[in-house]
Amino acid sequence: MVSSDFSIEEQEEEEDYFDYSYDVAGTEPGSIIIDPLALPSRLTLIEYDENNAYRRVNTQPKDCVSCLTNNLISWANIEGLGTENILREVEQVFQLHPLILEDVVSVPQRPKIEDYPDQLLIILHSIKPNKNEIGFTTEQISFILGKNYLLTFQEDEIEDFTRIIDRIRLNQGKVRQLGADYLAYLLLDTLIDNYFPVLEDYGERIEDLEDQIVLNPSKKTLQEIYNIRRELLALRRSIWPLRNLFNELTREDNNLITKEVYVYFRDCYYHTIQILDILETYRELASSLMDVLISSMSNKMNEVITLLTIISSIFIPLTFIAGLYGMNFEYMPELKWRWGYFGTLFLMLLIAGGMTFYFWRRGWFKLFLQK
Amino acid sequence: MVSSDFSIEEQEEEEDYFDYSYDVAGTEPGSIIIDPLALPSRLTLIEYDENNAYRRVNTQPKDCVSCLTNNLISWANIEGLGTENILREVEQVFQLHPLILEDVVSVPQRPKIEDYPDQLLIILHSIKPNKNEIGFTTEQISFILGKNYLLTFQEDEIEDFTRIIDRIRLNQGKVRQLGADYLAYLLLDTLIDNYFPVLEDYGERIEDLEDQIVLNPSKKTLQEIYNIRRELLALRRSIWPLRNLFNELTREDNNLITKEVYVYFRDCYYHTIQILDILETYRELASSLMDVLISSMSNKMNEVITLLTIISSIFIPLTFIAGLYGMNFEYMPELKWRWGYFGTLFLMLLIAGGMTFYFWRRGWFKLFLQK
Amino acid sequence: MVSSDFSIEEQEEEEDYFDYSYDVAGTEPGSIIIDPLALPSRLTLIEYDENNAYRRVNTQPKDCVSCLTNNLISWANIEGLGTENILREVEQVFQLHPLILEDVVSVPQRPKIEDYPDQLLIILHSIKPNKNEIGFTTEQISFILGKNYLLTFQEDEIEDFTRIIDRIRLNQGKVRQLGADYLAYLLLDTLIDNYFPVLEDYGERIEDLEDQIVLNPSKKTLQEIYNIRRELLALRRSIWPLRNLFNELTREDNNLITKEVYVYFRDCYYHTIQILDILETYRELASSLMDVLISSMSNKMNEVITLLTIISSIFIPLTFIAGLYGMNFEYMPELKWRWGYFGTLFLMLLIAGGMTFYFWRRGWFKLFLQK
Amino acid sequence: MVSSDFSIEEQEEEEDYFDYSYDVAGTEPGSIIIDPLALPSRLTLIEYDENNAYRRVNTQPKDCVSCLTNNLISWANIEGLGTENILREVEQVFQLHPLILEDVVSVPQRPKIEDYPDQLLIILHSIKPNKNEIGFTTEQISFILGKNYLLTFQEDEIEDFTRIIDRIRLNQGKVRQLGADYLAYLLLDTLIDNYFPVLEDYGERIEDLEDQIVLNPSKKTLQEIYNIRRELLALRRSIWPLRNLFNELTREDNNLITKEVYVYFRDCYYHTIQILDILETYRELASSLMDVLISSMSNKMNEVITLLTIISSIFIPLTFIAGLYGMNFEYMPELKWRWGYFGTLFLMLLIAGGMTFYFWRRGWFKLFLQK
Amino acid sequence: MVSSDFSIEEQEEEEDYFDYSYDVAGTEPGSIIIDPLALPSRLTLIEYDENNAYRRVNTQPKDCVSCLTNNLISWANIEGLGTENILREVEQVFQLHPLILEDVVSVPQRPKIEDYPDQLLIILHSIKPNKNEIGFTTEQISFILGKNYLLTFQEDEIEDFTRIIDRIRLNQGKVRQLGADYLAYLLLDTLIDNYFPVLEDYGERIEDLEDQIVLNPSKKTLQEIYNIRRELLALRRSIWPLRNLFNELTREDNNLITKEVYVYFRDCYYHTIQILDILETYRELASSLMDVLISSMSNKMNEVITLLTIISSIFIPLTFIAGLYGMNFEYMPELKWRWGYFGTLFLMLLIAGGMTFYFWRRGWFKLFLQK
Repeated sequence: MVSSDFSIEEQEEEEDYFDYSYDVAGTEPGSIIIDPLALPSRLTLIEYDENNAYRRVNTQPKDCVSCLTNNLISWANIEGLGTENILREVEQVFQLHPLILEDVVSVPQRPKIEDYPDQLLIILHSIKPNKNEIGFTTEQISFILGKNYLLTFQEDEIEDFTRIIDRIRLNQGKVRQLGADYLAYLLLDTLIDNYFPVLEDYGERIEDLEDQIVLNPSKKTLQEIYNIRRELLALRRSIWPLRNLFNELTREDNNLITKEVYVYFRDCYYHTIQILDILETYRELASSLMDVLISSMSNKMNEVITLLTIISSIFIPLTFIAGLYGMNFEYMPELKWRWGYFGTLFLMLLIAGGMTFYFWRRGWFKLFLQK
Repeated sequence: MVSSDFSIEEQEEEEDYFDYSYDVAGTEPGSIIIDPLALPSRLTLIEYDENNAYRRVNTQPKDCVSCLTNNLISWANIEGLGTENILREVEQVFQLHPLILEDVVSVPQRPKIEDYPDQLLIILHSIKPNKNEIGFTTEQISFILGKNYLLTFQEDEIEDFTRIIDRIRLNQGKVRQLGADYLAYLLLDTLIDNYFPVLEDYGERIEDLEDQIVLNPSKKTLQEIYNIRRELLALRRSIWPLRNLFNELTREDNNLITKEVYVYFRDCYYHTIQILDILETYRELASSLMDVLISSMSNKMNEVITLLTIISSIFIPLTFIAGLYGMNFEYMPELKWRWGYFGTLFLMLLIAGGMTFYFWRRGWFKLFLQK
Repeated sequence: MVSSDFSIEEQEEEEDYFDYSYDVAGTEPGSIIIDPLALPSRLTLIEYDENNAYRRVNTQPKDCVSCLTNNLISWANIEGLGTENILREVEQVFQLHPLILEDVVSVPQRPKIEDYPDQLLIILHSIKPNKNEIGFTTEQISFILGKNYLLTFQEDEIEDFTRIIDRIRLNQGKVRQLGADYLAYLLLDTLIDNYFPVLEDYGERIEDLEDQIVLNPSKKTLQEIYNIRRELLALRRSIWPLRNLFNELTREDNNLITKEVYVYFRDCYYHTIQILDILETYRELASSLMDVLISSMSNKMNEVITLLTIISSIFIPLTFIAGLYGMNFEYMPELKWRWGYFGTLFLMLLIAGGMTFYFWRRGWFKLFLQK
Repeated sequence: MVSSDFSIEEQEEEEDYFDYSYDVAGTEPGSIIIDPLALPSRLTLIEYDENNAYRRVNTQPKDCVSCLTNNLISWANIEGLGTENILREVEQVFQLHPLILEDVVSVPQRPKIEDYPDQLLIILHSIKPNKNEIGFTTEQISFILGKNYLLTFQEDEIEDFTRIIDRIRLNQGKVRQLGADYLAYLLLDTLIDNYFPVLEDYGERIEDLEDQIVLNPSKKTLQEIYNIRRELLALRRSIWPLRNLFNELTREDNNLITKEVYVYFRDCYYHTIQILDILETYRELASSLMDVLISSMSNKMNEVITLLTIISSIFIPLTFIAGLYGMNFEYMPELKWRWGYFGTLFLMLLIAGGMTFYFWRRGWFKLFLQK
Repeated sequence: MVSSDFSIEEQEEEEDYFDYSYDVAGTEPGSIIIDPLALPSRLTLIEYDENNAYRRVNTQPKDCVSCLTNNLISWANIEGLGTENILREVEQVFQLHPLILEDVVSVPQRPKIEDYPDQLLIILHSIKPNKNEIGFTTEQISFILGKNYLLTFQEDEIEDFTRIIDRIRLNQGKVRQLGADYLAYLLLDTLIDNYFPVLEDYGERIEDLEDQIVLNPSKKTLQEIYNIRRELLALRRSIWPLRNLFNELTREDNNLITKEVYVYFRDCYYHTIQILDILETYRELASSLMDVLISSMSNKMNEVITLLTIISSIFIPLTFIAGLYGMNFEYMPELKWRWGYFGTLFLMLLIAGGMTFYFWRRGWFKLFLQK
């Protein structure tokens, strides 16, 4: 059945969209709870300067100790949040505040930016359209930006990052000339750009609905509108905090971001505003589609009921007259008249004609000729 | 009856949710009115430093005099607001402003934070899901934070605090290293974390409604949506002020909160925003469910009325024809024709077929094959 | 008739709720227009310090001249705004700015606070539930706070002020220790506290509606919801400006209010926010009750129309068959068959049974067993 | 016909309400386009100080040259915006910025305040109820306030200004003691006061609708609600900018307005807020009237359809039974029974009674006894 | 068919209205992607000072090198964004930041203003009504304002700019006296002025709907309302950012805009606010038209269903009576009565009359005499 599919599908998506992760009341702050379903952690370390670039896959946290002291730009990328001791070691090596790691593994968090001494924590969501083209999944990704290093924690591998890695490897663009802040920008920009195709999908779904809704409103249309509203709501929750996040990054009062890179973050900020712009437009469209649907149903009922009324109003009086002369009274003079039958037929014609004319005058027939 | 149960249940909940406590007009400020149903007050005093921790249950307010002078961190916890002389003694020992005690015993108050010289008053609500799984109850809890002491007033004992007490006893985490401000944070964080499971319940109730509403909308669904909207409204009233409350606590201009602890209150602030985020999403969902319900009912009526119209439109004209030839006129030539009867039957078939074809073309039958 | 009563009642309340007083265009600023229906003015002067308290009833404005110079706290209370020369004399004695008296007698004004050199003008509304328990009436009361005097103008006597007067007389609480600003606070607090029972009434009316609306929606319910929305709107107009008013009083930049009294005005501010909180909740409830009503009516119509359809769909085809064999054709072979009649009855039973089964499968009967 | 009247009336009002004046794209800034329908310009010059007051009607712009140099307060009032050379001469005499005159003659402009060096431009709308008591017309009036002169441009003569002129002539009030800023206040206050009676009209129209809507909703009610909403929207557009306008005038940072006059502008500001207050209330009322109307129509349909269902449900089964025994089968044993006819009548009575009892139990009859 | 036309038309407009241009995730910032459908770029260079004005059509970017050094005001206007090497050369000559050109060719962008060292980037949309008078198309135009030069990039030639060019050529107005900032103002003002006639179109479409909707609501009306809401939403997205854009230009903290020109930008700002004002009014009108439509449909259904009920209620009981005496029982005493037939007729008349009277009393006939 369609409907039970619907409910099952919902529950699965629900987990992704709406629930933020939270602590059990009374737990120690800084304690982390590893989700048993989380992927095992894998650490990749990329180090580069203008002249050289190194990459170590599946390395150990202790290999990162040098990152803090040498002159290279280091990017330590942890994929998968399932191996507690790796995460704890990374925490020690990079001297993270206890609350940072708690936020990183509590999936999903609300996107946020937090200033710690010497470090900047940025948490946001990457987005991916579902393979079956309906809805989307989000994954949390955390950035810890230090003086000349960047730490990233991903729930799962994000494919689009390979392009950035290639660019480092091949020394394309400015990435090797600039610092860890520019690298952070490149990664964030990639994540933001992924929102656009997801939004475009909703644009198309709304357009499809626009056609359906006037011609042939049905239960499915209703469900679809509701689902779109629900998913756009989830999307907004994911994007809305980014506005403040990037606004804060463009305020130029942070000593971890160089002046040259601010202009790039400003660009991210404008992209976020564009996304919100489109989102709000879709939300308003979806909400006025609901009005159109109700109105369209009302219109359909009008049609149906008008037909019922026309037919009933014409035939019920006629049926009465027929019934009248079907009575079996012994003394009914009309029955014996020569022209009784034809007179009655003529009377019926007159009534039917009069009624039809009245309905035509009121414009009720137009309803049926419209389509 | 379901409906009278409903109203009784409502009234009980109502008292918890919506009414703030207020003074009778013209009463002296600082005068307190003890609710006759309030539990008797019980004072527990916990004192600790890095090396030692003491606990005195059911102690007297005068035992707290030393709290203000010694170097230990003291937590005086009053459970139950029903014994006036204990409350008054505590007021004297800790030199509380007369308005403080008035706020503490006026249950419920709007959550708020107030600066008094040398003291910080924080009032908020603890939340607990009802045992029967529908709705929630709130209780007021007041914090008075001083230089090295914390005073808490609870309407009723809050179970989750025992974990904090254990942590003090067993010297787990940082609680024994840090001051009364960190203890206040631990307790507040526990209260905030309790909101999440209550919210999750609403998420599930909304999901249940989503399935019901399209398949089988009924009076009960309507009541349930209204109740959810009503309870979310009450919940918002309880949480909304917390946003400002914690925002003020993170502003770093208070000399009772040390720099090291600010970052923890910021964490509380983000949790509150998460809660509000979820709450607003649920409110929007509940409100669009109402649209879906109205639309769904309209759809159902469309179905019913279309069936009525189809059957009436086909049979009413036929019945008329049958009535016509049931008339008893003496001179009705058709009655005597050899094929009159079968001709009439054929005519009726023609009309019924034509009508059916018309309805099929208009797509009215699809409505009944949908499900 | 109920309906004409309704309109009369409305118009009377209307005058109280919605119309602000305004000048005729082009009149001199500072000119006052005495409402011919206003009560005659009566001046009561209360003077006190820590040791003594005097009260002069029905005194003359010129007796107040000493208020400005002596060391006593003076409260000049004018009840009734109908005697122009008394008002004018008071204006002269206390050297009021011409715009002040204009505001005081223009009833009703929007609540506001205005800084004049050496004087603070506060205008707000006292509220009183109507005796017949439905709705409320408001009266304007103006405060002019000076260095050590307080001037109040009341449209009509406010009963709850007698308790404050008693407290001065009996030297209860701090009123005799503190200045005119504390007296102003006491009076304002009394006025604010009066809003709570009025609000509670609306809470009860909304609860009553909640039960009615699902079980038995009617025209009266509709009128009641509309009236509640209308009155809450009026109430909000009266309370909303108080928020800013008290916020300004707590800003501590006014030299007429001593530091010690600020904390009390802050308390008033929080009460006002509580009232607005409740008000907004009621407004949202009333607005979603409207949705419930529309939905509930739609549900009722569904029930009715489903019954019509069931009965029509079963009997119309049967009636047609009966009509068919009531035709008077000479040659109708079935009429002569031995089992024609019983066969026809069996056919009818079959049709009726099939229809009933179809309706049962679609769940249409449940609608009638629900209640 | 009512409906065509409606549309004509609409279009006429439309021009007044909604269209702001605008330039053709690419025209020179500062170029003015005289509306061919504008009235011819007439310049009146009034000059006064504490001792003397002069008035020159129909004077020439060059007579105003002395205004800028002498010590008198001058008010140059231009009525009618149709004579370009007069306007241009005035522009030269008073050395207006080229954009000022463009704004003055582009009718209507959005109300605004603009600071030019040594001059303050204020543009707002005067309002006048239509003679036929429905709706209103607005006219633009521009103020240019200089050091000791005031320039006003009116589309048409505003009658209420004659009272101000009389006050100058007769030396009433403070107008002759204070400067051009006080004169500007007097004129602005007159314009603001004119909004109140227009608003009061809407209050009455809404009240009329409240009665109509529940008792007898009709197409006309619907049109009337829509018109009120439309006109209130237009009114709001005219008043909303005044809030900022007067707020800016009360900020005390303008060297053209003396300290003594600020308090008067503050009074204007409060009047504007009062007007907006009432306006928003009416808008909310009008919007909830729409809900009441829809609900009321739904209620009416419920009534109608319930009657249809009651009558159909009772008589359709009876008609079927009657039809049954009207069949002409040769072998129908019941027809020959002695009590067949009366038994059938009794059966019919039983069915009718049962149905009636069922409907009575469901409370469907109450609907018809309500009114 | 109308409906398929509708959907096709939609999709075409859609591309213009709603989709912002975006990068593929992971592309290098500063890389530009030339739309293969973009027009070939054509560079026109206009240079002028108070005495001379030169114009070079179809020139090469390298001819602009002197613009940066000579004392003339230069306007380099690029029409068409399709020739990458021309754009790249312009970028080099004017030393544009890599992000600028990316923004310029990514069409459409959200309108924005960005400060670069020594340059100011302004991106906005020009608007043009569609030739077939329904809807509009927008084109992106980018301004780069330097010390004494202005660079503009247009998607397609904007006709209204020729008037500005003429004004430069003929030395009309102040354009030759003032700098590049004034030229930028003239061009921006031209673009803003073009929004007014587009808005006016919507005003007329709404007015047309107002008449239609009450008299004759139909599916087309519904589509039209939805389309208007959708297009106004798109329009708002285009205009809304301009508010901030021009507000920033009037803040007087930019060293590229001279003091004399600020007042002109302020004028632009007010025009933008006027446009938004009108837009919001239309949006509210369109939204209340939806309410009117639903209400109007409900009214129409009321009419139809009332007629059905009247006719059914009168004739169904009569038909039953007729059926009763059409029964063929052998013993039916009434059939033999002398006045049986006429008595029955009289009874029928009585019932019909009673029913009619009842309906007339309830005012149900009025519904049909209304129109």
